[in-house]
Amino acid sequence: MIIEKRLEDLGIVLPPTPVAVGSYATAILSGDMLYLSGTGGFNTGDTPVFGKLGREVTIDQGYSSSKGIVLNFLSTMKDFLGDLDRVEQIVKLLCFVNCTSDFIRQPEVVNGASDLLLEIFGEDRGFHVRSAIGVFSLPFNIPVEIEMIVRVHA
Amino acid sequence: MIIEKRLEDLGIVLPPTPVAVGSYATAILSGDMLYLSGTGGFNTGDTPVFGKLGREVTIDQGYSSSKGIVLNFLSTMKDFLGDLDRVEQIVKLLCFVNCTSDFIRQPEVVNGASDLLLEIFGEDRGFHVRSAIGVFSLPFNIPVEIEMIVRVHA
Amino acid sequence: MIIEKRLEDLGIVLPPTPVAVGSYATAILSGDMLYLSGTGGFNTGDTPVFGKLGREVTIDQGYSSSKGIVLNFLSTMKDFLGDLDRVEQIVKLLCFVNCTSDFIRQPEVVNGASDLLLEIFGEDRGFHVRSAIGVFSLPFNIPVEIEMIVRVHA
Repeated sequence: MIIEKRLEDLGIVLPPTPVAVGSYATAILSGDMLYLSGTGGFNTGDTPVFGKLGREVTIDQGYSSSKGIVLNFLSTMKDFLGDLDRVEQIVKLLCFVNCTSDFIRQPEVVNGASDLLLEIFGEDRGFHVRSAIGVFSLPFNIPVEIEMIVRVHA
Repeated sequence: MIIEKRLEDLGIVLPPTPVAVGSYATAILSGDMLYLSGTGGFNTGDTPVFGKLGREVTIDQGYSSSKGIVLNFLSTMKDFLGDLDRVEQIVKLLCFVNCTSDFIRQPEVVNGASDLLLEIFGEDRGFHVRSAIGVFSLPFNIPVEIEMIVRVHA
Repeated sequence: MIIEKRLEDLGIVLPPTPVAVGSYATAILSGDMLYLSGTGGFNTGDTPVFGKLGREVTIDQGYSSSKGIVLNFLSTMKDFLGDLDRVEQIVKLLCFVNCTSDFIRQPEVVNGASDLLLEIFGEDRGFHVRSAIGVFSLPFNIPVEIEMIVRVHA
């Protein structure tokens, strides 16, 4: 329970386990790789933010939304794995930012997810590859959607 | 040939094996993970639909196009694997919906793919993680493009 | 050093090792799969190109930018793996093209990456799956962003 102790030290309370918004699973384990469905950060207790970066959503709000996505992932993983200490390596994030045509600061927005993962899992296990893309529209008008791949042990 | 019997029972006839539209492969096996290239659903026998959700393409048409993509994947996998019973787990879909800026119902569109995979492979093998993204434009103006990762056995 | 000899024969000089533009790694090895972060092709020695396909960036420029991305990947992999001969199989590219709403020739643009990978690694090791997507906006207004997965041996 090292990671849960760490969350407690950081004052982080996990949100309710997210549910899928369609006919799919929120997590699938294949070998030692755990695949997590794309999700937004809208159920983290704060007032949810909707809309596009470069218009009604600020970079700070997008950063915060990206952090909320990590909390959702943690909640899903705790439910799926039983113990978050089974996370061996955050491998990969694929990040989509709902934005205007001239918005080009996607990396700053999704650093919210990367920074929090590093804070919780440390450099050894928390460092990951990442792509950040600006997209035209996201389900329910969420500002950020991220999917994740994690290596876990038994 | 359990899956092919299942397809027959469902009245599904697979389309011709899709070909790549560039210098890449439609499927690559790496260990027990089969990676499938992003594809549209335009060669499934029905009149092909082109355009954007939220404008000239309806949700029903997008849903149907997503089903067509699964048929393409099945055709590719049958060609590559020899026997569709080698599919052990549908692991992951990444779904891109060609849409207008205010279209936010991507999950309903790509449920066409998820629902059909569940119908064919059942809950145990058919359940998968998924991301649904709204994008500005897709090759050849197809309404939906999906890529897939599947675990297979020898 | 077969691949490096091949690069020399092709007159290819690798660019400096790319650095991450946020709190993430440019490459993560998980088992025998090497995951590479999404990157643009703007540090390849040529005058960098910014903007959108279908507007100020031509298909030739986009094709060239896609080649530049492969050079970045090679530089990252050489730094990470020590020897490019450890590349066993280029498995997967996910390609995002920064473009206008009516631009639908993404495959031609990202063939720049696929063609160069095939030229360097040959058909056996260089063939890969691929998705090409048109997006609204990319970090720093780069015209193309690609992420890659590669299988390597010890």
